Amino acid sequence: MSVRTDLAMEAKELVTEEISGVEERQYQKQNMQITHVTIKDETAAQTLGKPIGKYVTIETKNMGNKDANNISEIAGVLAEELKKVYHVRNEDTILIIGLGNQAITPDSVGPKTVREVLVTRHLFEYVPDVMDERMCRVSAIAPGVLGTTGIETGEIVFGLVEKIKPNLVIAIDALVSLHAQRVAKTIQMTDTGIHPGSGVGNNRKALNKETLGVPVIAIGVPTILDTTGFFKENFSFFVDSLPQEVMSKKQKDNLMTRVSFWGDESFFVTPKDMDELSDTVSSILALGIDLWLHHEMTEEELLLYR
Amino acid sequence: MSVRTDLAMEAKELVTEEISGVEERQYQKQNMQITHVTIKDETAAQTLGKPIGKYVTIETKNMGNKDANNISEIAGVLAEELKKVYHVRNEDTILIIGLGNQAITPDSVGPKTVREVLVTRHLFEYVPDVMDERMCRVSAIAPGVLGTTGIETGEIVFGLVEKIKPNLVIAIDALVSLHAQRVAKTIQMTDTGIHPGSGVGNNRKALNKETLGVPVIAIGVPTILDTTGFFKENFSFFVDSLPQEVMSKKQKDNLMTRVSFWGDESFFVTPKDMDELSDTVSSILALGIDLWLHHEMTEEELLLYR
Amino acid sequence: MSVRTDLAMEAKELVTEEISGVEERQYQKQNMQITHVTIKDETAAQTLGKPIGKYVTIETKNMGNKDANNISEIAGVLAEELKKVYHVRNEDTILIIGLGNQAITPDSVGPKTVREVLVTRHLFEYVPDVMDERMCRVSAIAPGVLGTTGIETGEIVFGLVEKIKPNLVIAIDALVSLHAQRVAKTIQMTDTGIHPGSGVGNNRKALNKETLGVPVIAIGVPTILDTTGFFKENFSFFVDSLPQEVMSKKQKDNLMTRVSFWGDESFFVTPKDMDELSDTVSSILALGIDLWLHHEMTEEELLLYR
Amino acid sequence: MSVRTDLAMEAKELVTEEISGVEERQYQKQNMQITHVTIKDETAAQTLGKPIGKYVTIETKNMGNKDANNISEIAGVLAEELKKVYHVRNEDTILIIGLGNQAITPDSVGPKTVREVLVTRHLFEYVPDVMDERMCRVSAIAPGVLGTTGIETGEIVFGLVEKIKPNLVIAIDALVSLHAQRVAKTIQMTDTGIHPGSGVGNNRKALNKETLGVPVIAIGVPTILDTTGFFKENFSFFVDSLPQEVMSKKQKDNLMTRVSFWGDESFFVTPKDMDELSDTVSSILALGIDLWLHHEMTEEELLLYR
Repeated sequence: MSVRTDLAMEAKELVTEEISGVEERQYQKQNMQITHVTIKDETAAQTLGKPIGKYVTIETKNMGNKDANNISEIAGVLAEELKKVYHVRNEDTILIIGLGNQAITPDSVGPKTVREVLVTRHLFEYVPDVMDERMCRVSAIAPGVLGTTGIETGEIVFGLVEKIKPNLVIAIDALVSLHAQRVAKTIQMTDTGIHPGSGVGNNRKALNKETLGVPVIAIGVPTILDTTGFFKENFSFFVDSLPQEVMSKKQKDNLMTRVSFWGDESFFVTPKDMDELSDTVSSILALGIDLWLHHEMTEEELLLYR
Repeated sequence: MSVRTDLAMEAKELVTEEISGVEERQYQKQNMQITHVTIKDETAAQTLGKPIGKYVTIETKNMGNKDANNISEIAGVLAEELKKVYHVRNEDTILIIGLGNQAITPDSVGPKTVREVLVTRHLFEYVPDVMDERMCRVSAIAPGVLGTTGIETGEIVFGLVEKIKPNLVIAIDALVSLHAQRVAKTIQMTDTGIHPGSGVGNNRKALNKETLGVPVIAIGVPTILDTTGFFKENFSFFVDSLPQEVMSKKQKDNLMTRVSFWGDESFFVTPKDMDELSDTVSSILALGIDLWLHHEMTEEELLLYR
Repeated sequence: MSVRTDLAMEAKELVTEEISGVEERQYQKQNMQITHVTIKDETAAQTLGKPIGKYVTIETKNMGNKDANNISEIAGVLAEELKKVYHVRNEDTILIIGLGNQAITPDSVGPKTVREVLVTRHLFEYVPDVMDERMCRVSAIAPGVLGTTGIETGEIVFGLVEKIKPNLVIAIDALVSLHAQRVAKTIQMTDTGIHPGSGVGNNRKALNKETLGVPVIAIGVPTILDTTGFFKENFSFFVDSLPQEVMSKKQKDNLMTRVSFWGDESFFVTPKDMDELSDTVSSILALGIDLWLHHEMTEEELLLYR
Repeated sequence: MSVRTDLAMEAKELVTEEISGVEERQYQKQNMQITHVTIKDETAAQTLGKPIGKYVTIETKNMGNKDANNISEIAGVLAEELKKVYHVRNEDTILIIGLGNQAITPDSVGPKTVREVLVTRHLFEYVPDVMDERMCRVSAIAPGVLGTTGIETGEIVFGLVEKIKPNLVIAIDALVSLHAQRVAKTIQMTDTGIHPGSGVGNNRKALNKETLGVPVIAIGVPTILDTTGFFKENFSFFVDSLPQEVMSKKQKDNLMTRVSFWGDESFFVTPKDMDELSDTVSSILALGIDLWLHHEMTEEELLLYR
């Protein structure tokens, strides 16, 4: 499958036949569309190109609205859904990893979220008296990307996990989507961690329970439209729809081969106002994560620690 | 013509028949490809969708190389070509306008260049003794965009031209190209000024000699790939190449109509490393403009004023 | 008076004798300290080094708290006080000027506020149907500083006032204070406009009703601590307190002369977290101005236009 | 000693008596003042408040000049002096740590240098064929600060040293100086590593050979003027110079006590144009480190890898 999507729900949409090992359910919550996709066996994982596990998607048209009430509302729903994916205990130690290159706008959601999230681990050591026992111990780092550090993200994270010994790792990342209407309007969370590249198979650089030894929840927002998919999704629709007498199967294949250069790796398709969008999206993710982790505390109580 | 390009040389490439009122010549200079397109009459202007005047393009693969020697070399060629477009006298007063929204990466070339260009007008008033009489009086401003100021760029520039009474206005802008290999690898300069929208016809918001009363040289670098054009240029090539028995003219037209939604205005296609590219491009433009304006001075002499 | 403060209330504090032409009153509002200083005649203006007019100061320890409720609360009080300084009518056209250099952190409050304030003037032209008749026509620009544009701010603003013909100009600026506890914790608003340098006397570069022909409300926040004043205020207190037999008048003068280099113009004293402070302060100013200008609308109604 | 300086040469200047365990020599190189201070025994270390080891300082007025030739010249001298402090072999693996908070201007020199330095470690793995065997394996990371990550810098660095097993760690940091004329105009390099706080005694958070197991070279540039020192250095000079009959020892002590609030920890004194200065300084450090590490290669050869 040459089409690239990081969203399990889009991977499922691409498969037209029935797949036995996949469950999907959808519901509305405050005008947001929630989709739960569960990949239950290895056959389904191979078909969708995503590892076995839970994938929850929140879709909302309001992700770019920087009004504080709007940010609170989406963050609240995000926290509720995250609680279904993983239950955090008050005494847990958490390590949040903001993946991506903050110098590249659509790739900056991870580092920006890390900068906004409530960090508490050092406070429990230095000012324990002011801490609320309902808060867990949160640390957060944006380790940079291989091209600028010369170090695999995994190497950095493995080192930190050994030192900090967290109960949970949370990885924040920018994703790729096939649909313009989902870019910067969707949040996906999954208990399968991060799988650079194909998603299944190459486990060497994955950040997941197998490689790190602790559960890894990945939270991502698509900020880039897959050009290959953008093209093929539309173009192949029309080409496919042409009857045999207009274009033969072989001619169609030939055409598709010749336009394969479409996917120029040095370019990307992103919303014009991604600069502002990434700020708002990061605020939503940070607050949603805060409300999930310190789940017995209200937004107002948490604000005292900012 | 639904395809959008801000480069006159690309507009000419799109026209396959011979046009009498257009002259083009090309030559190499230090591994850069220089193209001079001159639109000489109104018929040619209508055909190409660009006003009558001179257009010079420098193409180089090295525009992203931030090495100081490389920046000097391209800036030197830029200055030489700008001298051919407009001769600046030592005593001239110059107003440089950096168009575009600096908060949006591919649109930030104008404001960034304005920030780097050598500004001297106030020095002639406040510290006249340190000024070299071979320098002209340069002022530079990035007026912002309508959406954030509520003021048409033209209104701001008209007001400034009345106050400052420059001999020449220079407008720096980010452009749209049809070809991936030209994005962030091309500089266009023209004596026709800036023509938002169609380029010809609507003169109301143009920044040119007619509207401002002084010559306007526009200097631009394509930073965005036209998605409509990107699509149509390639796609229509293949569709056009299909024989009549495979797809009829009517079917082809129908197909092209149905994929017209391709050009979603809220997205753009831009190089992944546009953040860094825009810094280097702005350094090249700023130094090239400095060498053009203060043409009797060397780069070393100019550095004393930075 | 070598001590520099942009706050009228501090200028008044420095004068120990009674001044007939100055009125001051203070009250509390939601834990904020409000101070009204009115300079009523030319003698008082000379003594305080500030022009005749009204000066209102809001002091609050919470200016750095980025919580949305806190921002709303301070902005609400700011809007109420601004209404006392100048009454805006629904049909007014407003021009907001963000003074200062956005590349220098403590000087960036003006440009940042301009970026956040609600701009509507162009919407009344392009999408009049969606506009509420209770909104006034707002334009906003950050013209940059002389050193980077080569153009006096006054020249730019005069040109704009001629084109736009506003009923009111609002100038936002970063100020200098004498007291650490007021830096980034105070907002001053005045109907006397902006007076670079000494404040009285040199009117050439002032932005006020006399020079622009329309009322000018200046709104400022101290972000820099005056080092000269910081030094002299404390140091001279101790030196002055020394009895004559310990240090003679001449010795004291001599000492003060020798430490005059203290005020090195190329340095400033600013809070360590001025980066974050300037963001929060700008959000407060922008919202306060919005609520003042569109005074019949609620914060919720205004959010629809952001 | 309440005065704070991170420069060994300033610590030495503060001590007026002769100290046996300290050696100092100075020379000029291309208009730069080079000072070598060697602390040779524990007594001298206690007296100066700096650990035993070598400290080299380069002072130049041109650190803020962003001309490429100037950057090359200072970087060249920096590389020569670094070679005297530590000899790097071609096959060495190097870990560069950029300390400090990049969101706070005067604290951003470390992270900015890390962003500019040539990183090669991953290239030896992924594209070994294009690598020159005269290059060493460089990785670089800006780990952030405790307040934003919740993790001690030492914990992050220890983890990385275990994974990467470098032969050398280089730590880049912003420093505090006592003298305005040294701020942003001095580079200090030392083989003693980084010692947060007092410098000697508390070794728990030090980054040095003892704690990390590999040599640690620290390179720093003062970007902040010590207000305590700034004040005391000048003020106490004058107070001290007062004869006994003018001010008694007790009166002097009393005065110094009363002005101790001077050193408000939430403020700093920094050059007005620190934003631009930190960019130029980081370019100098990055190039100087590149020339030191890949010492058999020229600047031109290294540019191919940027």
